[in-house]
Amino acid sequence: MPKFDDKGLLTAVVTDANDGSVLMVAFMDAEALEATRASGKAHFHSRSRGRLWKKGESSGNVLKVVEMLVDCDQDAIVLRCSPAGPTCHTGATSCFYRVLDGDTLHRVKS
Amino acid sequence: MPKFDDKGLLTAVVTDANDGSVLMVAFMDAEALEATRASGKAHFHSRSRGRLWKKGESSGNVLKVVEMLVDCDQDAIVLRCSPAGPTCHTGATSCFYRVLDGDTLHRVKS
Repeated sequence: MPKFDDKGLLTAVVTDANDGSVLMVAFMDAEALEATRASGKAHFHSRSRGRLWKKGESSGNVLKVVEMLVDCDQDAIVLRCSPAGPTCHTGATSCFYRVLDGDTLHRVKS
Repeated sequence: MPKFDDKGLLTAVVTDANDGSVLMVAFMDAEALEATRASGKAHFHSRSRGRLWKKGESSGNVLKVVEMLVDCDQDAIVLRCSPAGPTCHTGATSCFYRVLDGDTLHRVKS
């Protein structure tokens, strides 16, 4: 089973199960992991709001979990997901839509 | 530019630039980011050892950085890399070699 850090969190990486691209990074506590497993939809712990956060709860862009992979020391998890829409709150498909080039950021993805 | 959290860290996700698979998750501080940019090889901050850690410094399995992507709120980074060998200390290609299935972990990758 996954292990949570001293703040009760583990790092979660969401990938698109269709093309493998990284969509977002967030954090899960035990409650979020349980809600994800029970519902089949990705839930996280919002550190800024201090509460359980179902991804897409307001936008409708939920993430249906296809598979969960755990790393060697069990403190990080990859959620392979089927996204209902753009993952990023900016409307981009992925939160990682910019490349770091020298000291500037260039947009590379829609 | 990336932003570091209250511990001076940002979350780094390493993917294989060839097939897009997630290889590992680690943390970077400003020193690790600078060393990565200067050398073109992935460096992290080892929380357990409290020091700069060049991935592959003992195993030789360095990660050549092809591209760095930054997320919307700039507190996570994806390093698209060309790996010199297996990334995981267990010898597996990726640290994410097990799937979470109910309450058990099944090995799914070499």
